[in-house]
Amino acid sequence: MKKTETMSRRTFLSAAAGTAAASLFTTAHAGALYSSMAQAGNADPQYPWKDKGVIDLSHSPYAKLKGVPVAAVTIQEGFWSKRRQTNVQDSIPSMYDELIAHGRMDNFLRLEGRSDAPQKGPVYSDSDMYKWTEAVGFALQTQNLPALREKADTVIHEIVAAQEPGGYLNTYYVQDRSKLRMLPDTQTTGHELYNIGHLIQGSIAYYRATGDPTLLDAGIKFVDGFLLPNYGPGPNQKPIVAGHPEIEMSLIELYRTTGNHKYLELAGYILHGDTRIPLKERQIVYMFCGIPFTSRTKLEGHAVRAMYACCGATDYYLETGDASYLNTLTHLWEDLIEHQLYITGGVGARSEGEAFGDAYELPNARAYGESCAAIGNMMWNYRMLSATADARHADVMERALYNGINSGMSLNGRLYCYRNPLAFDPSTGDRIRNPWYDTTCCPPNLERTLASLPGYFYSTSSEGIYIHLYDNSELNWRLESGNAIRITQTTKYPWEGRVNLRVMPGQPEEFTIFLRIPSWSRASSVSVGGRQMGNIAPGRYLAIRRRWSGEENIELNLDMQPKLVRANPAVAEDTGRIAVQRGPVVFCMEQLDQADAKPDNFALFAARLSGETTAQYNADLLDGVVELTHAGVVNEQAASAALYQAAQTAGSGGQSMPLRLIPYYAWANREPSNMQVWIPYSRA
Amino acid sequence: MKKTETMSRRTFLSAAAGTAAASLFTTAHAGALYSSMAQAGNADPQYPWKDKGVIDLSHSPYAKLKGVPVAAVTIQEGFWSKRRQTNVQDSIPSMYDELIAHGRMDNFLRLEGRSDAPQKGPVYSDSDMYKWTEAVGFALQTQNLPALREKADTVIHEIVAAQEPGGYLNTYYVQDRSKLRMLPDTQTTGHELYNIGHLIQGSIAYYRATGDPTLLDAGIKFVDGFLLPNYGPGPNQKPIVAGHPEIEMSLIELYRTTGNHKYLELAGYILHGDTRIPLKERQIVYMFCGIPFTSRTKLEGHAVRAMYACCGATDYYLETGDASYLNTLTHLWEDLIEHQLYITGGVGARSEGEAFGDAYELPNARAYGESCAAIGNMMWNYRMLSATADARHADVMERALYNGINSGMSLNGRLYCYRNPLAFDPSTGDRIRNPWYDTTCCPPNLERTLASLPGYFYSTSSEGIYIHLYDNSELNWRLESGNAIRITQTTKYPWEGRVNLRVMPGQPEEFTIFLRIPSWSRASSVSVGGRQMGNIAPGRYLAIRRRWSGEENIELNLDMQPKLVRANPAVAEDTGRIAVQRGPVVFCMEQLDQADAKPDNFALFAARLSGETTAQYNADLLDGVVELTHAGVVNEQAASAALYQAAQTAGSGGQSMPLRLIPYYAWANREPSNMQVWIPYSRA
Repeated sequence: MKKTETMSRRTFLSAAAGTAAASLFTTAHAGALYSSMAQAGNADPQYPWKDKGVIDLSHSPYAKLKGVPVAAVTIQEGFWSKRRQTNVQDSIPSMYDELIAHGRMDNFLRLEGRSDAPQKGPVYSDSDMYKWTEAVGFALQTQNLPALREKADTVIHEIVAAQEPGGYLNTYYVQDRSKLRMLPDTQTTGHELYNIGHLIQGSIAYYRATGDPTLLDAGIKFVDGFLLPNYGPGPNQKPIVAGHPEIEMSLIELYRTTGNHKYLELAGYILHGDTRIPLKERQIVYMFCGIPFTSRTKLEGHAVRAMYACCGATDYYLETGDASYLNTLTHLWEDLIEHQLYITGGVGARSEGEAFGDAYELPNARAYGESCAAIGNMMWNYRMLSATADARHADVMERALYNGINSGMSLNGRLYCYRNPLAFDPSTGDRIRNPWYDTTCCPPNLERTLASLPGYFYSTSSEGIYIHLYDNSELNWRLESGNAIRITQTTKYPWEGRVNLRVMPGQPEEFTIFLRIPSWSRASSVSVGGRQMGNIAPGRYLAIRRRWSGEENIELNLDMQPKLVRANPAVAEDTGRIAVQRGPVVFCMEQLDQADAKPDNFALFAARLSGETTAQYNADLLDGVVELTHAGVVNEQAASAALYQAAQTAGSGGQSMPLRLIPYYAWANREPSNMQVWIPYSRA
Repeated sequence: MKKTETMSRRTFLSAAAGTAAASLFTTAHAGALYSSMAQAGNADPQYPWKDKGVIDLSHSPYAKLKGVPVAAVTIQEGFWSKRRQTNVQDSIPSMYDELIAHGRMDNFLRLEGRSDAPQKGPVYSDSDMYKWTEAVGFALQTQNLPALREKADTVIHEIVAAQEPGGYLNTYYVQDRSKLRMLPDTQTTGHELYNIGHLIQGSIAYYRATGDPTLLDAGIKFVDGFLLPNYGPGPNQKPIVAGHPEIEMSLIELYRTTGNHKYLELAGYILHGDTRIPLKERQIVYMFCGIPFTSRTKLEGHAVRAMYACCGATDYYLETGDASYLNTLTHLWEDLIEHQLYITGGVGARSEGEAFGDAYELPNARAYGESCAAIGNMMWNYRMLSATADARHADVMERALYNGINSGMSLNGRLYCYRNPLAFDPSTGDRIRNPWYDTTCCPPNLERTLASLPGYFYSTSSEGIYIHLYDNSELNWRLESGNAIRITQTTKYPWEGRVNLRVMPGQPEEFTIFLRIPSWSRASSVSVGGRQMGNIAPGRYLAIRRRWSGEENIELNLDMQPKLVRANPAVAEDTGRIAVQRGPVVFCMEQLDQADAKPDNFALFAARLSGETTAQYNADLLDGVVELTHAGVVNEQAASAALYQAAQTAGSGGQSMPLRLIPYYAWANREPSNMQVWIPYSRA
């Protein structure tokens, strides 16, 4: 049955691909391109490049859920609006200035004889320009931003001018280094295909925003002109190893965009690995590629590589329905949530190799938790959610979004975290938030994520519509039946638990609204038109099936009681500690908020396990946050304690002191301060 | 005043050095060499090379304590005798076989045209042969071991045959790599002087055992022939950076052995650093050399480098009395015991860079705690003890010896730890004990330490004699007055707290016996001739001054009550945990000893904070150990717990179960098992 579906899908796609292929290497007027694909979808036939989701699942046969266009959701004043405004007004423009100042565009101009500057930055520096372009692309899908568009147009034209006639494009493997191109050793470390993967993703976001295929054509030209003729499984082709997974998901998105089935096949080949490139065990672990993806049994190695590989593999499943992929992905996901996930949604415990640790190895101060890895985690879980409609994926997505991703950018939008530790001591001299990193993967990654955020709020299915995320917002889209649907959300989420939804179908129709009940909401209520609903289970979608007509109100009330959380006893670093979560937001203590703010005393605070937590919105603190106060003790005698002391005499007693907590994402936005998410507790 | 002392000492030494210098490059009959130094000391004039301590402090003007010869103490059947017997019967011989099998001698033979084998091992491989020779040298100081002596003689002759006429000796920087010799970059990473430092230490131990100066002459020839003429602070000399400290302390021991003051001056120059070799900040941190030692403010960087640098700096103080050195050393030592010392006496928290972490950064499972660093810690504290007579240094020395060093060698003497973690999960696939490492610094380091151990038991001072360590043993030596002194210890230490000492001076004399009361012994008693002593303070030497004559009995009773220990609250990884120590021995739990031995349940054990601990000697367990039983609980429900869960419902309750503990040093001597030193506690 599945096989037949795959076959017919393939037949359809091949036909579509024929049309798309004919338009390759053209730079015809935007909108004329790739029209065969567009006609098969929901999109406006006049602008077939428009109205796509974060990824375009509109034709993906194994996607239970289809994304809604980024532009279909308008985020209104509320939690995310300020972040997103800062993103387009400060982050993306200032990152452009940083990229220019650090020679990242000179790298391209040099190849065009327009710059004398030497090559700058690591081998993956091209990708930073591409990811920045992607951020602009997503931003332009929801907003008119002429200044950014002009900059991006210039960047794109300078990029494509550096492309070689045969399609190869890279600013590092040129001149003396040309001979190293795509050698097996270069592939494992050189990031050539990683760069192109980001070019493709950036080009598609930009194309979907503007209809301008200039950069997209360059990506196609690389793949069709350079890659496919020379590399692949054929006897006359040379082998590929991804090195840093990224190309896989981008090729599949290129397939979704063009209908050219060869891109999907190439992605499948890369996901399978090619034994003609012999790899050492440590490379296989670190790179999370090079062997069949379906032979993976656990998350390991470089966390971003692993997350991007999982994204590509899920994309592959969404198109092919290959059950061995879903089995492996399910198994890896269980490994994630059982052993590897920080409470912040971050992943990657170790600085060495920016890597996953052993099961339950989740250090706090030394946590790596790279912003890119948390983003990769969200991207993967969005794909898994689309494949399965299982709300647990939305839980992980939300956890990462509000915490481990959101922490990655300062409130002013101009400083970025590479690491996102769960405890911090400024006396170590570490600077966690910086305007620039020579490896500047995280900043534009954060920017593209915030710019694409509206696309993560809803999905459609054949049964109706799924609501994943809550914020003041308005959806204007279509059900899969073609009937228009408008949904508004009015809420102070995540600071308050009440969400008022108004559902307005274009025509009366029976369908289901799948309302996400987050797993952290132990006591929720839902009323529809004033009538209370039953069977509300945390960590599930509440299916509200009825004939919807006119304008109907849903009131959702989520449980905003602050929760003390303990980690599994196997997490050695969280023994004797609790964390505090309220709604989707994980909290932390900064030393500067405490009444006893002596830095040396930070380790002496303990939270009373049975103490009360009170919540208070403070508009003047950290751009407006709920702050928490929890009963605590401070044991000042222990300050002068020896490194080791008799257990009976140590640590007992102490004086009562309320502990003040702020949302984790907002940490390190004031003067340097000690910080901890996991707080020692006292039973006293 | 001090200056005058230094001056007169220098004058004396220069005169002595003149004599020594005359005998350089000769291979005259053992005993004829360096006689000027020998005559100034206590040693038998017929065998002036004999009867030296682990380091020879007999002429060190700023040593408050002088070591006693390694051969002066006979360790009898008891705790250390089995270890030391295994060392000479199994460890040293099997390590010889490993070194030969891995081509470490072929490296030398190749240079003599006697081997076709290619160069094997890292740049510091020569040092492993030298350290092995040192182990044999110390072993021969207390035992007649003809088979080992024959092997060592052969090794030494093969080593010196590889020395170049100009004195240079190294098996790596030869042929094509000769041009890299002693370049600044080579000095920072190439370990040329580190190798020679170990040659010198090994040669001195061997010379002091046998009177054979063959290897010692090679060391002198390197320094006098190659190093001193070409390298140093002079305008026509090239600069030196130690790279890996080791040469400093070995040059000072060479000065003590020969009286040649130039070696002390060269050590001082290296400890000061030479600005003509510009270093990056991270090199200065990592290498713990290259800038004035006296400008150091904390322990940081590579732990073995830092410890060896501190050894060299203390040796320099012991000879020169330079107060700025003692100030710096005291400050660094306080940093050690307040922020950096594992309860096992191990140091070096991080695997990355084998380095010290930040203050209080003392992870357990990921602890590095390299055996060499613990040994370096003991060597440094022995020097500090000699400089200050402060019993706190003996406490650290004992802590390292019984735990973090002793753990480094398996009970069968053929497997070695490089890392000495304080928690372990075998499912990570780590193998902690191995017969061979390509970087095999730790195994021969452990062997030389066990072989030299008798030399750490006692010191003399102008007031009398200090007793640092306890074990069944007999001392035969002299007081500084020249009067013979014999002391026997009869004890089952460290398993029992009673030590019976018999003090037998050659002639009646008034002097002080300084009896170490370990800091862990909160309630101790001492009686002399049946009379109880007062003023017994933990962490101090009890001074027993009287006129000793004939045969006098001292009975020492130390507090062997097991202690639950808590770490300073700033040690994040030990929150909610206790460790158990009994006497000098730190204990640990291995999962295989627990009644509920399911590996998955290991994290669910908790020790009752107010529970009883009982101790039982078990002759059949792990070559005979005291095992402890402590009241505990196991919470099996938590086994299937999610990664994060509500604090209120988690972790409470559980079923009573006694926890069994073994000495930490004996861990991982049976089948692979979970292990932890720091055990979660329960107040219930």
